Amino acid sequence: MKTIAIVGASGVVGKELLRSLDYVNFRIEPENLVLFTSPRSAGKEVDTPYGKKVFQAFDLEIVRGFDLIFLSVSGSFTEEYGTALTEEGAIVIDKSSAFRYKEDVPLVIPEINFEHVKDSKYIATPNCTTSILAMPLYPIYKKYGLKKVIVSTYQATSGGGQAAMEELESETRNYLSGDKVLNNKFAHPIPFNLIPAIDSFQDNGYTKEEMKMVWETRKIFGIPDLAISCTSVRIPTFRSHAESVTVETEHPVDVDEVRELLESTPEVKVVDDPDMQHYPMPLTASEAFDVEVGRIRKNDVFGDFGLDFFVCGDQLLRGAAYNAVRIAERVWDER
Amino acid sequence: MKTIAIVGASGVVGKELLRSLDYVNFRIEPENLVLFTSPRSAGKEVDTPYGKKVFQAFDLEIVRGFDLIFLSVSGSFTEEYGTALTEEGAIVIDKSSAFRYKEDVPLVIPEINFEHVKDSKYIATPNCTTSILAMPLYPIYKKYGLKKVIVSTYQATSGGGQAAMEELESETRNYLSGDKVLNNKFAHPIPFNLIPAIDSFQDNGYTKEEMKMVWETRKIFGIPDLAISCTSVRIPTFRSHAESVTVETEHPVDVDEVRELLESTPEVKVVDDPDMQHYPMPLTASEAFDVEVGRIRKNDVFGDFGLDFFVCGDQLLRGAAYNAVRIAERVWDER
Repeated sequence: MKTIAIVGASGVVGKELLRSLDYVNFRIEPENLVLFTSPRSAGKEVDTPYGKKVFQAFDLEIVRGFDLIFLSVSGSFTEEYGTALTEEGAIVIDKSSAFRYKEDVPLVIPEINFEHVKDSKYIATPNCTTSILAMPLYPIYKKYGLKKVIVSTYQATSGGGQAAMEELESETRNYLSGDKVLNNKFAHPIPFNLIPAIDSFQDNGYTKEEMKMVWETRKIFGIPDLAISCTSVRIPTFRSHAESVTVETEHPVDVDEVRELLESTPEVKVVDDPDMQHYPMPLTASEAFDVEVGRIRKNDVFGDFGLDFFVCGDQLLRGAAYNAVRIAERVWDER
Repeated sequence: MKTIAIVGASGVVGKELLRSLDYVNFRIEPENLVLFTSPRSAGKEVDTPYGKKVFQAFDLEIVRGFDLIFLSVSGSFTEEYGTALTEEGAIVIDKSSAFRYKEDVPLVIPEINFEHVKDSKYIATPNCTTSILAMPLYPIYKKYGLKKVIVSTYQATSGGGQAAMEELESETRNYLSGDKVLNNKFAHPIPFNLIPAIDSFQDNGYTKEEMKMVWETRKIFGIPDLAISCTSVRIPTFRSHAESVTVETEHPVDVDEVRELLESTPEVKVVDDPDMQHYPMPLTASEAFDVEVGRIRKNDVFGDFGLDFFVCGDQLLRGAAYNAVRIAERVWDER
């Protein structure tokens, strides 16, 4: 019987990995699924879709004996242990950015570039905004080609983990009570505010969060010189990222045709009915496995080649856990 | 002695008109400044920077006897009474969109195109997102020319008036208490959500709010065919609008030079120091008269001609009341 380890099981993405495995009816016996955490959380019993589980303290020697390992921990932990985990044959699916940009590490959205996996034992998954954007952007690229992509994001606090979501909630309460509003996870108070800077700044004036979308979309789509830019903005929402997207295509676009194309794209849900006031929103995209896309319209700035759309997806699901589980399904089948 | 009437004085913009008049030390005797409202609010006494005032019920015959009229009411009221108000010589400064697009009505940001006023008695002011964007965009246009402008907005609830701001506050309380979250002013619940649609949809798939930026920027800058597009998104903030802007210029741009240019632009405040985590935010732009600009960087998508920046300005001040008062100052001086 094959076995699965989730490393970082106590985090928000860890919980969504369990939910995603259950959602796809992953072929695993409950006793063959083991949850690993830091020593601090070890011993804690939790309810999961696979029954009650007790968190185990991470131990390299034990974990690398598993067949499949979901690695949902920080970049620095991953840099230390990531490759060692594959040494006894395990396949590692890593949500961190530690090895995403290494040439020999495939960076995978399974619906788009599963063929990049080949016989690699180490598979990286993209940043949340990249995987949410890629779902509608890839079929558009395949049909019309891409000349330019310009993105502005509306990112939820879940990107900063459980503590960041709790900070939004507790500090919003403080704001409404007239108490002092604090900030620990964020550089500034987040309630009723926005912060147009996520992660560290690079020499080119973009943040690392913004450049992730550039580097990763190029790698996943296999277009090393794709002209793409991003502005990443944190807003006071809990768990779905939204993105406003302008595209210049190589071939003329037809909006109705794009809508049909996206309607026939698996894992994408077209929510685009102005008369009914239907468009992508965190309210409806949160806790959903599909990515919502709407506001599909011609952008005259690029003449016949211009297209605008708005996308919203759950940062913890398609943006992290669910994408990893979809990779795992395919790997599980093929090996 | 010259006289001023504020029509719509009980609304959020009405209050900010009084604050803006006081801020610029407008040359008016308190007794010559009269506040008009609907009959419903008439008789109410309010504290103002000009002492206690009692709201008067709007009466066309009385109001049009004033020298200067700030019109801060709905488009339909304005359509009915707007032009009649000028018939006895009064100058009307109108915040609504009722006559903005009429060829013979100047649409004015005084720092940019005050010369459009000429001898017109009726002066329209732009939509909030237009006037906030135009402050940094115009000097960039003058120096480098503009080929393309692509904007995504992060708009505060103040754009929907006092009741919309109150809905954000009260429904956020309900959300945090676990009570049902309602929506009256908005098409969907706004707490911890965003709504990517403001105002009615047009045939081209854009909302009227989005097209306002297109129509108005073209008119104010005097570039009838400017290639500009906008995606307008409501987010759960109170009173400052932010905008993520990508520009393609006609001449190569230098980022340091742009920063200097904007630093020397009146009414614009450059807030752009990544090391200090300084960038434009509603938290700092709200209740400020200047428009904040930051995240100034080269956008490689347009090679040497690409520029990105982020702007944030108080929707009620530069976005409405303060712009109107700055026009009034110039008109007052010149007539």
